Amino acid sequence: MKNKEDLFLHSKPAKILVQLNNPTKENYASKIAKNVDCTYSHAVRTIQNLEDYDLIESEKKGRKKELKLTDEGREIAETLSELLHQLR
Amino acid sequence: MKNKEDLFLHSKPAKILVQLNNPTKENYASKIAKNVDCTYSHAVRTIQNLEDYDLIESEKKGRKKELKLTDEGREIAETLSELLHQLR
Repeated sequence: MKNKEDLFLHSKPAKILVQLNNPTKENYASKIAKNVDCTYSHAVRTIQNLEDYDLIESEKKGRKKELKLTDEGREIAETLSELLHQLR
Repeated sequence: MKNKEDLFLHSKPAKILVQLNNPTKENYASKIAKNVDCTYSHAVRTIQNLEDYDLIESEKKGRKKELKLTDEGREIAETLSELLHQLR
């Protein structure tokens, strides 16, 4: 039986958004991949997707791209966070 | 480009749960299939899934099975409803 989370959610994009709402983490693709337990290339692709929908924005910091939520992304992240908690 | 809903959610189970949180509708599989725009057999399978996770319970009413949310199902339905609204 799948877990309840997978019944309703595509968990990687959901977790990436929730992760970015956590101000204590370093918000780079490589860190995010590690924290949500997916490959770097999957994380990069998903992040690009989330940027295309204006839920994330990025800023070049030297060789790295720092990611942060847009206002819309933050709202959705908060609801997803509650939902993930309920589905645990 | 997919819509934002499909980026995060498996929309049929989410919509079925939200639908069942609407007290004005007749909560039978056939009605639900119609309201969330999926086939009867897909609705029945998804409903069975949601019952297996104790999010829905059912009661025989003559030849029909009336469906309602459990307390846990209702909580999740409310959060999903907010999320679907934000993703619109």
